[in-house]
Amino acid sequence: MNAVEIIARKRDGAKLSRDEIAFFINSFLKNDVKDYQMSALLMAIYLKGMDFEETGWLTDVMLNSGKIVSFPKPDNVYADKHSTGGIGDKVSLILAPWVASCGVRVPMLSGRGLGHTGGTLDKLESIPGYKTNLTLEEFKAGVEKVGCVISGQTPEMAPADRAMYALRDVTATVESIPLICGSILSKKFAAGPTGLVFDVKCGNGAFMKTIESALQLANNLVGVGQAMGKRVRALITDMNQPLGRTAGNLLEVKESVDALNGDCSPDLYSVTMELCIEMLLLSGVSHDRESSRDFLEKKLLDGSAYRKFEKMVEYQGGNLSVFIEDGRLPRAPAVKVHESPISGYVQRFETEAIGRLIVDMGGGRKTKEDTVDPLVGLVFLKSLGDRVSVNEPLAEVHARDQAQADFFTERLDKLIQLGPEPMQPPELIKKRIG
Amino acid sequence: MNAVEIIARKRDGAKLSRDEIAFFINSFLKNDVKDYQMSALLMAIYLKGMDFEETGWLTDVMLNSGKIVSFPKPDNVYADKHSTGGIGDKVSLILAPWVASCGVRVPMLSGRGLGHTGGTLDKLESIPGYKTNLTLEEFKAGVEKVGCVISGQTPEMAPADRAMYALRDVTATVESIPLICGSILSKKFAAGPTGLVFDVKCGNGAFMKTIESALQLANNLVGVGQAMGKRVRALITDMNQPLGRTAGNLLEVKESVDALNGDCSPDLYSVTMELCIEMLLLSGVSHDRESSRDFLEKKLLDGSAYRKFEKMVEYQGGNLSVFIEDGRLPRAPAVKVHESPISGYVQRFETEAIGRLIVDMGGGRKTKEDTVDPLVGLVFLKSLGDRVSVNEPLAEVHARDQAQADFFTERLDKLIQLGPEPMQPPELIKKRIG
Repeated sequence: MNAVEIIARKRDGAKLSRDEIAFFINSFLKNDVKDYQMSALLMAIYLKGMDFEETGWLTDVMLNSGKIVSFPKPDNVYADKHSTGGIGDKVSLILAPWVASCGVRVPMLSGRGLGHTGGTLDKLESIPGYKTNLTLEEFKAGVEKVGCVISGQTPEMAPADRAMYALRDVTATVESIPLICGSILSKKFAAGPTGLVFDVKCGNGAFMKTIESALQLANNLVGVGQAMGKRVRALITDMNQPLGRTAGNLLEVKESVDALNGDCSPDLYSVTMELCIEMLLLSGVSHDRESSRDFLEKKLLDGSAYRKFEKMVEYQGGNLSVFIEDGRLPRAPAVKVHESPISGYVQRFETEAIGRLIVDMGGGRKTKEDTVDPLVGLVFLKSLGDRVSVNEPLAEVHARDQAQADFFTERLDKLIQLGPEPMQPPELIKKRIG
Repeated sequence: MNAVEIIARKRDGAKLSRDEIAFFINSFLKNDVKDYQMSALLMAIYLKGMDFEETGWLTDVMLNSGKIVSFPKPDNVYADKHSTGGIGDKVSLILAPWVASCGVRVPMLSGRGLGHTGGTLDKLESIPGYKTNLTLEEFKAGVEKVGCVISGQTPEMAPADRAMYALRDVTATVESIPLICGSILSKKFAAGPTGLVFDVKCGNGAFMKTIESALQLANNLVGVGQAMGKRVRALITDMNQPLGRTAGNLLEVKESVDALNGDCSPDLYSVTMELCIEMLLLSGVSHDRESSRDFLEKKLLDGSAYRKFEKMVEYQGGNLSVFIEDGRLPRAPAVKVHESPISGYVQRFETEAIGRLIVDMGGGRKTKEDTVDPLVGLVFLKSLGDRVSVNEPLAEVHARDQAQADFFTERLDKLIQLGPEPMQPPELIKKRIG
């Protein structure tokens, strides 16, 4: 086989064989195929596409380029969830212990924030002591012992994805559906789950702005996962406003702790519940939606879900005391309330711009090397469609100092739009796939 | 400006600006833009194309990446010819001195054979002593002194083309019309001509097999050249059989020497004459086709063209004595005549396969490092449409030894197809553009 011929075939729109893909990627990892050849293939894939089966082969080769966690008890049900990213999306922190309390084991690999969206690892690291860099053995043992673990990809997992992603990032080949599917699925399945639920975010705060693009990605993720013989499902959920009441690392952990203790905003509750139901169904822990919901409600109300969260945090070295002992929660140095300038209704959040505002405040990353400030962020006091009076508080800006608080409150004013007409908030769960 | 954004714009089908192209290529030559980024851009160009103006900017940037020969006397007319490559195509050897004898100065940059086609430099090097690696100063001085020079690209000329071509070769991005145009035009104009005539070969021995693909390339070469403000024209000429009577390095030099002395096959004469006429018209040396033809005929018949050839060879260190003194021409060790197995008509040459046969005999290059054997080759005794009797000689195989001669004569038998029906030979000059 010959690398140039393989590039030429994809350039001409042909479907590559499993052997061709394996030859190309494995040779690339041995540096027999050069990075300039890989980037030419990546651009050809970007422009010519790949079908489900071909993307499945790609994913399989990427997955098998490294170690795959294999759990010793095949009877147990191992499942994970992946979100395509949004603002205020702290679902993973609640979902993992919640479904684990129902008997689903959750080997969850998460990432850091990049672009305008937050990252689960950044959020968890605002828990004092929490380790997100477990070794493969610690990761595996934690899943067995606790029932759930949330940690970062280890160097042994899917090295082809890391090497290919590094090139995609600098060659304008990130936003390719087959390459996105290959990257997500190879990383996620390296952690050993048998099933995977996707939360494909859709709206003005998501990467997928339209229902069409969200559907395309969801159909591809599910289609490729199924072509690989995996159990996969997807929900398309709304991202036209921040999810829940907060955005910002420590604020979101606190909101998650509260949610696991029964205090949860309706939107965050619904999205998390629906994803948890899919995980139970996918895992065969329960067989219909209603009994899944009942089971999950029971485990939340009786404190099992929160206890699982405590155990996970403890296993990963974290200390929750500041979140649960009154008055100990650290607070940003300056907090300013943003009030409504008029009476009317909340019409629109500029959700992506709100995400960028948090990044600019220091709560997210502009480059991979940036450190994040756990304390900064926003608290949302109103949602889409809510009626507000003049001077009624809309949001709080948690900032590093008063000048920053003033500046970002001013900016936020343009990002929450009000009007005289009532508006119907968007549907939270837009579509189920798989 | 940002390399990734430039790649993304071309990926999305946008027209790049002159500044973007200059930034990208100049940064690439400084290694600020990496080879994997260049190869991603090359693939995007391959798949999304470039219009004439954009390709003109690309060419201009490539051209200006190195030294451009500038001739001291702008009154003189400097023109060159470029062929897209064929079998038995020795036109350059005859054309350069011929039009130089009419007062057009010809700073001709030529290349080596690669693929199934021969290369002018390989042919010229079968003249004892002939130097094809003149320095830029020697090249320039030779054009001024003799009127024509045929030599290879110097390292100072169009370094961007060399660096980009090296990547294209290993990333399946060679056969892209804008990249081909950029490569040819930047190299050719680096030698300082004000005008350029293209001989776009078309047929089963050419890179362009169909008239449509030949027209596309010719229109692009002319369109881009004109967008750059240059004087350019193209002829599409037939390559459904070897041009002239011979293919093979020394054999073709001998055929060229004979042609310049008045002994020329009609097809080679016509194609060369038509290209010479275009060069005279382009240069303004004459103003209509008929007077150009008369002028050229006169310069051939009175020996001026051949004397120009002698001077060029002498300037470049070559010695023609073996070609002009009776009985001194070296001959391949084994020559075998291939005879017609039937009575009938020559119906078809498998021209590309004939080119590959010569390469396999040692007369061409499989890799850039190969050396060529000047003596091997083929002599064609019949052309398309010729009537032949059984056992009448069709061709001679000039080989390294008898075994090779037997083997390749056997192979040649399948490459010259005969049949009972008369056939009309194809038109030699298929189209004029520009």
